[in-house]
Amino acid sequence: MSELDSVSAYNLDAQDPLANYRDRFVNKDPELIYLDGNSLGRLPRATIGRLQDVIEKEWGDRLIRGWNEGWFRLQESVGGKIAKLIGAEPDEVVVADSTSVNLFKLTLAAIRAQTGRHKIITDDLNFPSDLYVLQSTADLQSGSYIERISSEDDIHGPTEQISNALNDGTALLTLSHVTFKSGFIYNMALLSQQAREVGALTLWDLSHSAGSIEVNLRGSGADLAVGCTYKYLNGGPGAPAFLYVRRELQERLGNPLAGWFGQKNMFALDLDYQPESGIRRFLTGTPTILSLAAVENGVDLLNEVGIANLRKKSVAQTEYLIHLHDRYLAPLGFKVNSPRSPQMRGSHVSIGHPEGWRINQALIEEKKVLPDFREPDNLRLGIAPIYTTYADLYTAVMRIRSVVQDELYLKYDEARSEVT
Amino acid sequence: MSELDSVSAYNLDAQDPLANYRDRFVNKDPELIYLDGNSLGRLPRATIGRLQDVIEKEWGDRLIRGWNEGWFRLQESVGGKIAKLIGAEPDEVVVADSTSVNLFKLTLAAIRAQTGRHKIITDDLNFPSDLYVLQSTADLQSGSYIERISSEDDIHGPTEQISNALNDGTALLTLSHVTFKSGFIYNMALLSQQAREVGALTLWDLSHSAGSIEVNLRGSGADLAVGCTYKYLNGGPGAPAFLYVRRELQERLGNPLAGWFGQKNMFALDLDYQPESGIRRFLTGTPTILSLAAVENGVDLLNEVGIANLRKKSVAQTEYLIHLHDRYLAPLGFKVNSPRSPQMRGSHVSIGHPEGWRINQALIEEKKVLPDFREPDNLRLGIAPIYTTYADLYTAVMRIRSVVQDELYLKYDEARSEVT
Repeated sequence: MSELDSVSAYNLDAQDPLANYRDRFVNKDPELIYLDGNSLGRLPRATIGRLQDVIEKEWGDRLIRGWNEGWFRLQESVGGKIAKLIGAEPDEVVVADSTSVNLFKLTLAAIRAQTGRHKIITDDLNFPSDLYVLQSTADLQSGSYIERISSEDDIHGPTEQISNALNDGTALLTLSHVTFKSGFIYNMALLSQQAREVGALTLWDLSHSAGSIEVNLRGSGADLAVGCTYKYLNGGPGAPAFLYVRRELQERLGNPLAGWFGQKNMFALDLDYQPESGIRRFLTGTPTILSLAAVENGVDLLNEVGIANLRKKSVAQTEYLIHLHDRYLAPLGFKVNSPRSPQMRGSHVSIGHPEGWRINQALIEEKKVLPDFREPDNLRLGIAPIYTTYADLYTAVMRIRSVVQDELYLKYDEARSEVT
Repeated sequence: MSELDSVSAYNLDAQDPLANYRDRFVNKDPELIYLDGNSLGRLPRATIGRLQDVIEKEWGDRLIRGWNEGWFRLQESVGGKIAKLIGAEPDEVVVADSTSVNLFKLTLAAIRAQTGRHKIITDDLNFPSDLYVLQSTADLQSGSYIERISSEDDIHGPTEQISNALNDGTALLTLSHVTFKSGFIYNMALLSQQAREVGALTLWDLSHSAGSIEVNLRGSGADLAVGCTYKYLNGGPGAPAFLYVRRELQERLGNPLAGWFGQKNMFALDLDYQPESGIRRFLTGTPTILSLAAVENGVDLLNEVGIANLRKKSVAQTEYLIHLHDRYLAPLGFKVNSPRSPQMRGSHVSIGHPEGWRINQALIEEKKVLPDFREPDNLRLGIAPIYTTYADLYTAVMRIRSVVQDELYLKYDEARSEVT
């Protein structure tokens, strides 16, 4: 990759076998460089028509009949499609609630099933939101405690320390499969196997891996997983999350937050809870149908492309982006805060700069580039290979360079605003 | 009310000051008599345009910027509008998750705050879904147990037995304010006061009362409440639920399912949970924005009409429906399974018939009447005064009569299908 000019970017796009998929998404502003598909994926065009049907025909016309005409099974049917993307069987995945609620249910179920084991292992690269949920989980189970292992460089996961921490007192190991700041990929198969050897269960948060890298839950021997659908799955803002429970565990684990959608014969209205068999027992309340229906078209698109093809392009694009960084941004004080080895890196590249916060503000306000910022200094550049072009990446780097060279960021406030 | 013919129904509609609100809802099939607004409210016309904006402009064009441009505060702003309908202050209500998840969070928070008290009182007229959640809650707090008090006639709540059960070992009293089968209304002020006198907290499920009867949470001294938005609030299938925590209790109760939306300075990404002050601490994960946005227009409509006006019409309509029943349906073996006193009755009337299940099937399949069926024998006829007409009620009763007189129900299977 010696050529790093705009012509080479356009050539790379011209050779991209996935190039046509960009037009399957809404993209009205040709000037906008969107590098935040890892926070909120773009709107698939097909989703617009689907939602219009759900709203006007299913809700507006069919009314309550909509439940029997598809809504009741939508959590399983969309879950089954997500299963294909993450190496699971269709009857192992459902869409429900938020990632946090799903994480709560599965972590609590796991530690309650692990009698006599009290340790929950996680790391400081995990989503803070997951750590909050784990604190709630541990609070509810007498004796439980969290061992939060620190990364030495804030980029690579502390795999060896985690391995060493696993012992016969460990109830659960839970990690983000791809970490949200650096994009580091944990070796799911290795750690799941090591956990199993000491009798610990594993739970993986796939929010940054589902739809962006190849995940093989069953093949890895992973026990449990959760993940969101609004990032690489393009399910829409706050779209409901998914959960995975390995088939062999489904009957062993109870749902600690039982609800009528997990009840056997829910309309018999029995006063005592009797769980459904299979994955449905992990459901709780009534699902948000509009937000749930919005998930399906995005997932269909990814299945149409194939996760192997997406990953191949994603690796090529993160490599290209790092090359651009090294040539154009490193001289301006940037550094790569993501693993340089593509095998260890998901679909975003974080670049650090002491003025990262203000640079991010300037990019959004003046340069029509949308990355996002993560403390302390990370500009997170997310690549969604289904719609990100090489030209996007080249143009973004040129605009970032201009913000720094022209000192456009100086007029922005150093204080953090409430939300970013 | 001596005249009970079609002319009188049309006259009543002609005199109805709320009659014009019917056209604010989608209603494409003039033959359809929809009496299930207590399960899924109709689609407000304004919601169609609002959702189109949220989908195409906010998600499609604004993308991640949508969070700062309104989504982050939507749970509170819609909650504040619901507060007006239920006698709460705007900073006491948020929209989040499902009713079941909210019930779980608040009941668990309540019993954990009630050190040394172990009894949770409820009744057998409560939603079975709520009873399942209570079982989960009790399972998680050592020593806790549920005292489920039985109604003697399955119609009226066992108020006196509940009063007698309250004692200084009671952690929590939780009931459906309006019961889902008979529509019985509990005296919230009386029971909340009695509970407070013995130091018990109260939690009311408002799913069948919000938007249909006058609720005064603060005036009643109620501590906690939850409720859904897809029934009388017309928020759409599975729309997210609301929760209420009396202001004075907000700091005392922790959220046992902590998440990043309840975190102080959520984007500071602190690894340890620090709750926000106020009602936001009861939030957990990322809200489903499409389903949440859909709630607002329905709530706006109810606030525009005014809950007192809605209740006045609802009482007149349930009275009218019972008169029609007594004249036309009682002779065919029906009986009223709802309180006959309008002060004790919400906005639906359940009528029982030994062939209720098959009659309901025939009404749906052949007569374009949509009530719903609740075991063992109830046809539940829901009135949403904002769009139900007197002619709807008259026509429905005529069609029910025809199904029984002409024995149209005989061809249907007595076995219950999976969902109804």
